[in-house]
Amino acid sequence: MRLSEIGEFGLIKSFRKQIKTDRSVFMGSGDDCAVLKLNSSSYQLFTCDMIIEGVDFRKTDDLKFVGRKALAVSISDIAACGGLPRYAVISLGLPKNMQVEQAGLLAKGIFDLARKYKINIVGGDISACAKLIIDVSMLGEVKKHKLCLRRGARPGDIIMVTGSFGGSIKGKHLKFTPRLEEANFLVNHFKINSMIDVSDGLLQDLGHILEQSSAGAVLYESLIPLSKDAKNTEEALCSGEEFELLFTASREQANKIIKSSKYGFSVIGEIMPVSFGLRLIDHKSRYSKFSLRNGYCAEARTGRSFKAGYRHF
Amino acid sequence: MRLSEIGEFGLIKSFRKQIKTDRSVFMGSGDDCAVLKLNSSSYQLFTCDMIIEGVDFRKTDDLKFVGRKALAVSISDIAACGGLPRYAVISLGLPKNMQVEQAGLLAKGIFDLARKYKINIVGGDISACAKLIIDVSMLGEVKKHKLCLRRGARPGDIIMVTGSFGGSIKGKHLKFTPRLEEANFLVNHFKINSMIDVSDGLLQDLGHILEQSSAGAVLYESLIPLSKDAKNTEEALCSGEEFELLFTASREQANKIIKSSKYGFSVIGEIMPVSFGLRLIDHKSRYSKFSLRNGYCAEARTGRSFKAGYRHF
Repeated sequence: MRLSEIGEFGLIKSFRKQIKTDRSVFMGSGDDCAVLKLNSSSYQLFTCDMIIEGVDFRKTDDLKFVGRKALAVSISDIAACGGLPRYAVISLGLPKNMQVEQAGLLAKGIFDLARKYKINIVGGDISACAKLIIDVSMLGEVKKHKLCLRRGARPGDIIMVTGSFGGSIKGKHLKFTPRLEEANFLVNHFKINSMIDVSDGLLQDLGHILEQSSAGAVLYESLIPLSKDAKNTEEALCSGEEFELLFTASREQANKIIKSSKYGFSVIGEIMPVSFGLRLIDHKSRYSKFSLRNGYCAEARTGRSFKAGYRHF
Repeated sequence: MRLSEIGEFGLIKSFRKQIKTDRSVFMGSGDDCAVLKLNSSSYQLFTCDMIIEGVDFRKTDDLKFVGRKALAVSISDIAACGGLPRYAVISLGLPKNMQVEQAGLLAKGIFDLARKYKINIVGGDISACAKLIIDVSMLGEVKKHKLCLRRGARPGDIIMVTGSFGGSIKGKHLKFTPRLEEANFLVNHFKINSMIDVSDGLLQDLGHILEQSSAGAVLYESLIPLSKDAKNTEEALCSGEEFELLFTASREQANKIIKSSKYGFSVIGEIMPVSFGLRLIDHKSRYSKFSLRNGYCAEARTGRSFKAGYRHF
């Protein structure tokens, strides 16, 4: 059998079975970051993300934005866990015939964003490679009581998001600002029960929260904030690499978050018991039910020809 | 200008100029690992290494060994700093038409070695990629007084190595055992002034120690331990990916290390003042002088068609 048949999720599951970790690991693979015990008050966050020419960006894209994206994707993961990014190492696969100025643009994109977020670039590795590849590994820190994982959603929680969704491929996937400020505002002032960044797609990533929290959910189509590039709600629900935050909090906390209105947080639904499954209520109050087992957006995903595969394990 | 003209070292230098780090970074880019302040007694080590099909291994190589190598390269970096490996995250670029069993072999190579060295694999990222790519980022720990860097060599230090050199491309580059046990034996019982793992080649990596220590050195051709796969001493001096340890210690400490004779450590030369440069004394007591500025093994390196580029920055 080929990888294209079993799929990334199948492969990831078979890998996970073989992994054993010791007690210094609070949370291993399966969330936006690994969570390692650091000291009595804090955890260390550890994540990696690889972006590849022709898969995650086009050969013709401005390399300043490509470098920026490589770092921003990992910052988004740290943000989704409620932490602050601190250190990064970067592996580069560079084509031999690349112009030095192009490599300079790539570096500028990386270093400018690192400076903005006070991230120490502490090392790297350069290899010759036919296609441009950038892999960023990042370390962050989070106070124990601020840590957000996927597994904490509870029936009755209100489901909220930052920003708007849809059509990320038209530019946002390359130029997004990671929602670090929003994430830190949330964990500093409220009790967030679960959080994830939307890299696979809103439905898919909500599915990760539901799976790990053993919960169901109801979403209201009319509440999904659509970006100007969105085709329609269906596309917005399945669009990958939106890099918005998807999070849940108790009704009481959600009320306070909405009242704070400091950032554009939107309510999109509610966490339900697992037996409820995942249902989407449309504009005419009809509902569609999605299977938790078979994954979401199967059809929509095949349309994402540009984004051929991008998964955490 | 193209990258192939400026070269990896030129690019790395221009990158380094743009990097600023805060006081939590004891040592940023420029050594085998980055060294981060962890607590009052220990540092954290952070390193990454990317290996690419057609550059660092052949498409026909046993993927169990490829996976093993991906992890072993980073373990070797941690060892060279005197530390112990603890955690790793792994980014994989996998061809879509790869067989699932092949991916399983790759994973087995990684997980078996991780188990042997008690390394926690805590996460990763899978992308679709035309060529197989594995990038490992590893965290380690080292007691402050055991940390070894490249910059600590002093005139009068004896230069020593583990194992033997030459012809790594015939198999050792894929099947080597990282010298973690030897490195830990050294830092636990002796005062090691500088250490590096030989990935670029013995002369080249000694050059890194000399550059960062502002020192010169004399090497004795007759003392270079040749492996059974070595063509000759010149090849052994330039062969990359040997993954042996190259280290220096005072004469007194060196005597004790030799007497301990627990592992096969060999004396190969002596650290000299920087004005002495780097000289190789041949079997007939003639010496060749190498330029520190222009790099070593320029000729030999062009012969390394397989190992097209592999550098830390």
